[in-house]
Amino acid sequence: MPPPVRSYVLRREDEATHPDSIRAALAEFFSTFIFVFAAEGSIFALDKMYTDTGTTVTSLIMIALASALSLSAAVASSIHVSGGHLNPAITFGALVGGRISLIRAIYYWIAQLLGAIVATLLLRLITAGMRPLGLILASGEGELRELLLEAVMTFGLVYTFYATAIDPKRGSLGIIGPLAIGFILGANILVGGPFDGASMNPARAFGPALVEWRWRHHWIYWLGPFIGAALAGLIYEFMVIPTEAPHHPLHQPLAPEDY
Amino acid sequence: MPPPVRSYVLRREDEATHPDSIRAALAEFFSTFIFVFAAEGSIFALDKMYTDTGTTVTSLIMIALASALSLSAAVASSIHVSGGHLNPAITFGALVGGRISLIRAIYYWIAQLLGAIVATLLLRLITAGMRPLGLILASGEGELRELLLEAVMTFGLVYTFYATAIDPKRGSLGIIGPLAIGFILGANILVGGPFDGASMNPARAFGPALVEWRWRHHWIYWLGPFIGAALAGLIYEFMVIPTEAPHHPLHQPLAPEDY
Amino acid sequence: MPPPVRSYVLRREDEATHPDSIRAALAEFFSTFIFVFAAEGSIFALDKMYTDTGTTVTSLIMIALASALSLSAAVASSIHVSGGHLNPAITFGALVGGRISLIRAIYYWIAQLLGAIVATLLLRLITAGMRPLGLILASGEGELRELLLEAVMTFGLVYTFYATAIDPKRGSLGIIGPLAIGFILGANILVGGPFDGASMNPARAFGPALVEWRWRHHWIYWLGPFIGAALAGLIYEFMVIPTEAPHHPLHQPLAPEDY
Amino acid sequence: MPPPVRSYVLRREDEATHPDSIRAALAEFFSTFIFVFAAEGSIFALDKMYTDTGTTVTSLIMIALASALSLSAAVASSIHVSGGHLNPAITFGALVGGRISLIRAIYYWIAQLLGAIVATLLLRLITAGMRPLGLILASGEGELRELLLEAVMTFGLVYTFYATAIDPKRGSLGIIGPLAIGFILGANILVGGPFDGASMNPARAFGPALVEWRWRHHWIYWLGPFIGAALAGLIYEFMVIPTEAPHHPLHQPLAPEDY
Repeated sequence: MPPPVRSYVLRREDEATHPDSIRAALAEFFSTFIFVFAAEGSIFALDKMYTDTGTTVTSLIMIALASALSLSAAVASSIHVSGGHLNPAITFGALVGGRISLIRAIYYWIAQLLGAIVATLLLRLITAGMRPLGLILASGEGELRELLLEAVMTFGLVYTFYATAIDPKRGSLGIIGPLAIGFILGANILVGGPFDGASMNPARAFGPALVEWRWRHHWIYWLGPFIGAALAGLIYEFMVIPTEAPHHPLHQPLAPEDY
Repeated sequence: MPPPVRSYVLRREDEATHPDSIRAALAEFFSTFIFVFAAEGSIFALDKMYTDTGTTVTSLIMIALASALSLSAAVASSIHVSGGHLNPAITFGALVGGRISLIRAIYYWIAQLLGAIVATLLLRLITAGMRPLGLILASGEGELRELLLEAVMTFGLVYTFYATAIDPKRGSLGIIGPLAIGFILGANILVGGPFDGASMNPARAFGPALVEWRWRHHWIYWLGPFIGAALAGLIYEFMVIPTEAPHHPLHQPLAPEDY
Repeated sequence: MPPPVRSYVLRREDEATHPDSIRAALAEFFSTFIFVFAAEGSIFALDKMYTDTGTTVTSLIMIALASALSLSAAVASSIHVSGGHLNPAITFGALVGGRISLIRAIYYWIAQLLGAIVATLLLRLITAGMRPLGLILASGEGELRELLLEAVMTFGLVYTFYATAIDPKRGSLGIIGPLAIGFILGANILVGGPFDGASMNPARAFGPALVEWRWRHHWIYWLGPFIGAALAGLIYEFMVIPTEAPHHPLHQPLAPEDY
Repeated sequence: MPPPVRSYVLRREDEATHPDSIRAALAEFFSTFIFVFAAEGSIFALDKMYTDTGTTVTSLIMIALASALSLSAAVASSIHVSGGHLNPAITFGALVGGRISLIRAIYYWIAQLLGAIVATLLLRLITAGMRPLGLILASGEGELRELLLEAVMTFGLVYTFYATAIDPKRGSLGIIGPLAIGFILGANILVGGPFDGASMNPARAFGPALVEWRWRHHWIYWLGPFIGAALAGLIYEFMVIPTEAPHHPLHQPLAPEDY
């Protein structure tokens, strides 16, 4: 298969109204809702248990588990319908790599943001108006360094997404893809949590920011993930995906002349 | 495949006595037993370690892990025999979506409730009559808000079940289904645990309620999950499952005219 | 396929010397070693961190995680060679269900016990002779109740093993089997840990008992698992495994006359 | 398939410049980077939360989770391109077992070390120069005993890798392989963490050692893993992998004459 030619001229106008696109956007909406409800909701749960909201190791593990487990489940529940993005940065990475059309990307972004907003509104309703802090920079952390952190962490997330949920070499992307994507999110939350809350997902950050009307540093949670995602999409698409069959199957026993 | 016509007239009377139905009910009984033994048993274990039964982050993680891991294992052990419901709300969702007959649903419900009751009785016997609190509303939580919480969390659970264990587009539902279902249960327990105990499963709530004879707020743990499950079943069955082949394979590199 | 005729007359004497049997026993030895090294080793690690060895929630989670993760990995590493038993009780369940010959079961038992002994010896050597308590009954727990606990927990483990790693209906037992088996072990440790240490595996209990020469209550960790395993093997083999094709595929949309 | 003839004469000189090799080395670089960023980064995160860096159970669980989850994801993201080594010891085990050529092994080693170095440098940049302790021997631990510990733990890791990601009997190595490898790493960290930091991966140890210029005991983190990996590779390749078809399918119901 030849590498795709890059061109953003939109020819398939019917994409906008095709039932497939509607269904995929619905799947993005519901699965993003399920993910954000658990990821953001675990912070409400911590607030309910503690009066003190200081970050502790146990709290961080709890947030990472809730985020990782729910993202794996939510990607699994949408991967065969929409591709399981649930994240504007992943959609951006797929767009940059030429794996999704612009019109469909716009559908996905709207669906993802709406899913995150509805999840946050429901959480406030259920908890009678609790307002946890959400994603903020830890005191003493500089904006540029946190921008870099978000970019690097999202690079890992989108690289994993590309390799396990897009790369056509895999026959069973519906299984390892959701697991790997949830796992790397959880692992990166255990890294970035104490520094900037570890979003890696603009929708995840946007829902609470809108509902709580807290926009300080919010641009970091968009620009960082988009930079990381674009890098991952470009690198995986153009450098790692083979355009020809491998000349030697991996890990087959080597004959003497192969050494 | 055309969308199924909805009609609840029961014609296959032999379903009630067919060996398949008996075997499926047995599988539901044993797997629900295995799940409730671990999910409820972890609360007995906490009681054994603590004199103080207050909710802490670590306790919540322990309950969520025991529930998620045992549910994944129990769904895996029954998915090829009964479909791996283990939860009256999931059975209700499958019934509303037209994926299971009423007579078989009744079999499943009885088997699930019996499994939960036997698990709770064995736990009391083994622990010489320990009586942990089980599922209760946290002080200060309103019934309507907790009803909404149970409904929303069960929506996520049943939506995931529908997408990963029923949707015929998937070839390997025996693998990702059990994992995704256990994972979303665990994640939602990390959200709802401090508010209402996070049941999402009437059988899971009914076993201890019957054995301990504690019925306060019990209706919440039936009505909430059934509302969420019905919504998830209807939405997934009629809005998300495609009735025609997709017009463009997901994530294939786009040709210029596709943008 | 007809249900197997039960008969324990040994006719295939060559089983004892066939390379397959040797290789399977080797795989059982190495994988049991890997599992016990991590499961038992995590208790050494706790001892290294604490002077106080009292059971805490965090310690229990750590032991459950080490056991679940290592068992999943170890079953995965042997399931295609030996079937991934790594546990005399599972071998007994497979024997009772007629899935393994007696001579092969004896090979497996010896390999499993040796694997556990070598793991414990290496742990003592590495830690310069540390002697953690291992599996003991919590004070105040009666022997009969703990026997019942071990039997019930092992029932869940072996039922899961049978359903996910033996049942021929599954096409991909190499994937969900190891995960489900590790998961149910981890969940049950979170239940039984504070009561009797939650072994569910005579080899796991035997290694430390022999090396530390502590035999108090040791019979419980053999008799309980064997009872649970035999029950699970018999129930799954004769009641749950279908002997005929299902009359209606699971979860297919129902036609009106099917309700 | 006949067992491979061992011979380290290098005949395929084009391996060094073939696009496949370059692409595989790139995949090793990026995936090792993603893994080390999370595994090492979780220690930076602990440092950010604590002033006291003493090892606690919760900290150990956090490091084990970050390492296991990120390794599973990183192996999944490279297994179809490079085989998913991400670890000089695993590459050494595959070399000893005759599964990879020497020239490709050298490519992998360079890529893995570079990935670990870049990850550590980025972590220092993001955290404005934090310098966590990294892998050190706990006080009172002898070098020889820790060498043995690293060897034994790496043996388990590479044995699992061989069985789940190389053994040609498996059809779906892209799924259970990454999970099993991440799981056994996590379990072994819960064992070895309090003693020597539990590296099992020379690249994981080398990155921080170079950046922080701390070389005390560093040889242990190379020699130990290489010994364990060589043992695992030789044992699995020559003792466990069958060279003929099994004479009786595993776990099929036995006929009377089979007992």
